[in-house]
Amino acid sequence: MSLRFPDTATFTGFNAPVRIEGEIRDLEVEGEIPSGLEGSFYRCGPDFRFPPRLGDDINHNGDGVVSAFRFEGGRVHFAMRFVRTEKYAAEDAAGRGLIGLYRNPFTDDPLLAGRDRTLANTNVVLHAGRLLAMKEDGLPYALDPVTLDTLGRCDFGGRLQSQTFTAHPKIDPETQEMIGFGYEADGLAGRQMALQVIGADGVLVREEMFEAPYVSFQHDFAVTERHIVFALMPATTSLERLKAGQTHWVFDPSLPVKVGIMPRDGSVTDLRWFSAPGRGLGHVLNAVSDGEEVRLDIFVSERCQFPFIPNADGAGFDRAASTPRLARWRFDLSANSDGFEEEVLFPDFMEMPRTDDRYQTRPYRYGWCAVIDPQRPIATAGTLGPGWNTLVRVDMAARRQDRWWVGENAACQEPQFVPRRPGAAEGDGWLLCMLTRLAPQGYGSELVILDAERIAEGPIARVRAPIRLRGAIHGNWAPRPAPEGKAA
Amino acid sequence: MSLRFPDTATFTGFNAPVRIEGEIRDLEVEGEIPSGLEGSFYRCGPDFRFPPRLGDDINHNGDGVVSAFRFEGGRVHFAMRFVRTEKYAAEDAAGRGLIGLYRNPFTDDPLLAGRDRTLANTNVVLHAGRLLAMKEDGLPYALDPVTLDTLGRCDFGGRLQSQTFTAHPKIDPETQEMIGFGYEADGLAGRQMALQVIGADGVLVREEMFEAPYVSFQHDFAVTERHIVFALMPATTSLERLKAGQTHWVFDPSLPVKVGIMPRDGSVTDLRWFSAPGRGLGHVLNAVSDGEEVRLDIFVSERCQFPFIPNADGAGFDRAASTPRLARWRFDLSANSDGFEEEVLFPDFMEMPRTDDRYQTRPYRYGWCAVIDPQRPIATAGTLGPGWNTLVRVDMAARRQDRWWVGENAACQEPQFVPRRPGAAEGDGWLLCMLTRLAPQGYGSELVILDAERIAEGPIARVRAPIRLRGAIHGNWAPRPAPEGKAA
Repeated sequence: MSLRFPDTATFTGFNAPVRIEGEIRDLEVEGEIPSGLEGSFYRCGPDFRFPPRLGDDINHNGDGVVSAFRFEGGRVHFAMRFVRTEKYAAEDAAGRGLIGLYRNPFTDDPLLAGRDRTLANTNVVLHAGRLLAMKEDGLPYALDPVTLDTLGRCDFGGRLQSQTFTAHPKIDPETQEMIGFGYEADGLAGRQMALQVIGADGVLVREEMFEAPYVSFQHDFAVTERHIVFALMPATTSLERLKAGQTHWVFDPSLPVKVGIMPRDGSVTDLRWFSAPGRGLGHVLNAVSDGEEVRLDIFVSERCQFPFIPNADGAGFDRAASTPRLARWRFDLSANSDGFEEEVLFPDFMEMPRTDDRYQTRPYRYGWCAVIDPQRPIATAGTLGPGWNTLVRVDMAARRQDRWWVGENAACQEPQFVPRRPGAAEGDGWLLCMLTRLAPQGYGSELVILDAERIAEGPIARVRAPIRLRGAIHGNWAPRPAPEGKAA
Repeated sequence: MSLRFPDTATFTGFNAPVRIEGEIRDLEVEGEIPSGLEGSFYRCGPDFRFPPRLGDDINHNGDGVVSAFRFEGGRVHFAMRFVRTEKYAAEDAAGRGLIGLYRNPFTDDPLLAGRDRTLANTNVVLHAGRLLAMKEDGLPYALDPVTLDTLGRCDFGGRLQSQTFTAHPKIDPETQEMIGFGYEADGLAGRQMALQVIGADGVLVREEMFEAPYVSFQHDFAVTERHIVFALMPATTSLERLKAGQTHWVFDPSLPVKVGIMPRDGSVTDLRWFSAPGRGLGHVLNAVSDGEEVRLDIFVSERCQFPFIPNADGAGFDRAASTPRLARWRFDLSANSDGFEEEVLFPDFMEMPRTDDRYQTRPYRYGWCAVIDPQRPIATAGTLGPGWNTLVRVDMAARRQDRWWVGENAACQEPQFVPRRPGAAEGDGWLLCMLTRLAPQGYGSELVILDAERIAEGPIARVRAPIRLRGAIHGNWAPRPAPEGKAA
């Protein structure tokens, strides 16, 4: 039988499926790996085990691939594996693609009926010795941190009631608790949400279910030292639209933005909901509790960022209206209003935010993001849209940016901050970032390492992959290689 | 520490190190895999674990990589692994390249002193359930036929005295005996040769040592139903030149070609040596005993084929003089002469010969080779020289050729014949061949499958690798995937 990938944007050029699973010892290094940079940079993103059953597909519907760059004594090794989800196993046995539209099981091949169809393709987080590959429409899959072999679906000790778990859990830097949530927690297009707290030992400590104001696409959320913040944007769905074979999400700006805030030491019954006109929401940089004020630093756009989510009012995808900008939302818990204030912190086309994660949930000063700088060349060849052409450090106190343009025919992905040493000051360390080379003479992938405080100076070192690596979505650093399946 | 490959022909363009070890499930297939094509196509070639210690290197000095295309029920899977030689392990531990010049240990890093420095990078042969990766300057390494993991150096039961074993052993299609030989069998630049016979059970049956007329580069040899044929060309070496840090081989056409013929049921003491003026010798297509005549079908050139072997008379590399042509040498064992007759069978620039291996050592009619057809475009971009642009079937009885041009910006490697079924007539089956795509928009690799009797019609199917695969040197087909380390 023939087996062909389609000649569409998701499957050609830089995005052509790579699909190999394996290891590379000693990647090429230009420059010097900083001494003390010891650990693993894990990343997760989609690739495609089989051509799409429906003739084409969106990148977010690909099979989860986890990769690791391992830094050991100045050498860098690489490994990459597909996550063996139930969906992967079913297609492997069938010898062909079974999945239909993104998060619409009514479009699947009957052979996939009743099976877990989550893809574990969005983020990878090491917590309590478990390496978890995550996608928000299902439960995480646990992988061996060394071999990247799939150990199985993770329900934190069999106690989770929610059918979903976010790809953006927050780890409290002091307690090492992992706080997560689920939406459509009671099943497809369901209004139930769940709040989960996983102890530092990896065992579920607490789970509470509650009803969302409406079914909403909630890719991220926020946790502060004292509060938990849920943010709903008006991308919504219903069983009816799914049964009709439509896309999971439709963006309906007639619905409001809803922000639910609850105390960490309280319960979901304490949730207080704030409202604003319908907008597109992106990732959360961080959030802070300050007396009776909660500040949420979040990317906001007029319309939804994703071209694959149609507008309910029939409007086409409008890049300008979909431009994400970093905004600060201030919620006054002492006031009687359900409104909140917004301040746009930077006017730039910016996203993929990271912090010094020792300051996640806490007062912080620095962030690192990807920017599309219109003053610089923007690589589009072979990408699924204009590429991020600049890395930026944002100084939230000084409202200042430092920038590094990634160069001609290149694009960057989500950066990763690594502290220089355990007690280093906030932001004192390295910034790791995958670059996509889109030169006319060929595609390539390299990991650059910058001084996180001096990114304008450009990379200290470049780690070159000998093969093109498809773009990942999110990733995380683990301070030391984890021997024998346990985190260091 | 920095780790960079040089910007030289061996390490750039299509030849840039690939280095990844791993698996790909379900390669893309254009067309249909013929039903009945079930088995593994194993290939072996060089890649580079580390940048060369001396700043540059030749491709033949790279680390052995074995790959397998597995055909199962119309699906094709892929695996690739470095062979874990002693040299590989020593460099892996050191974190850098230790080897010096091709087959000159006097140019190695002292850390490699006393270690086996063979590279297992030339051919891979499945015999008696052992998958053997071979290079003629050392012993083979045995691999697991399924995982391609290295099991260890193979000395056929610990009984081998020779320090070397050819990369071109011959397997008798009736007895399944494997006949091999070694040169420099007593060590570097040594004149001793060895003849080895390995039983169908993989155990050494017979080994005899003898002195060669001179130390000669003997990449191939020949076996017939009744005779064994050694062919020496005047590429020679000495301990002195190696100690002086020179290349292993120097081509000295003042030395003669020597051909030694002995009866398979006799002994090396029965060797009868024939002589001719110094020439370059290439691979053997096949050889036949016919009464008192032995016919050797071998590729012959005026000078040595390899640009990296200098001429003793100081002449530069001359492509025309180094053109290999298929010749038939006839040795009359009943005559009293040490001469023999030569007939050039085809005038073309031809090499990389294969037969229907059920007819190896036996009377045969067909061969399949690679040709450089000057009437067609010749791809050179990123290759280590002009690429083979045409596959040919030679009909030795009709002295006729059938050809298939591999297409624009493409080059082919050594072909592989696979019989259609166990009892099929000679040449009735498929021809497998790796193509290198050298298109301006990027490099690629694909395996084409042709009807071996009708190659002019072009491929029945094309199996596409999602990553560029460096060129292999030789390979072999194994009829069925070998479960649990045993040959089918």
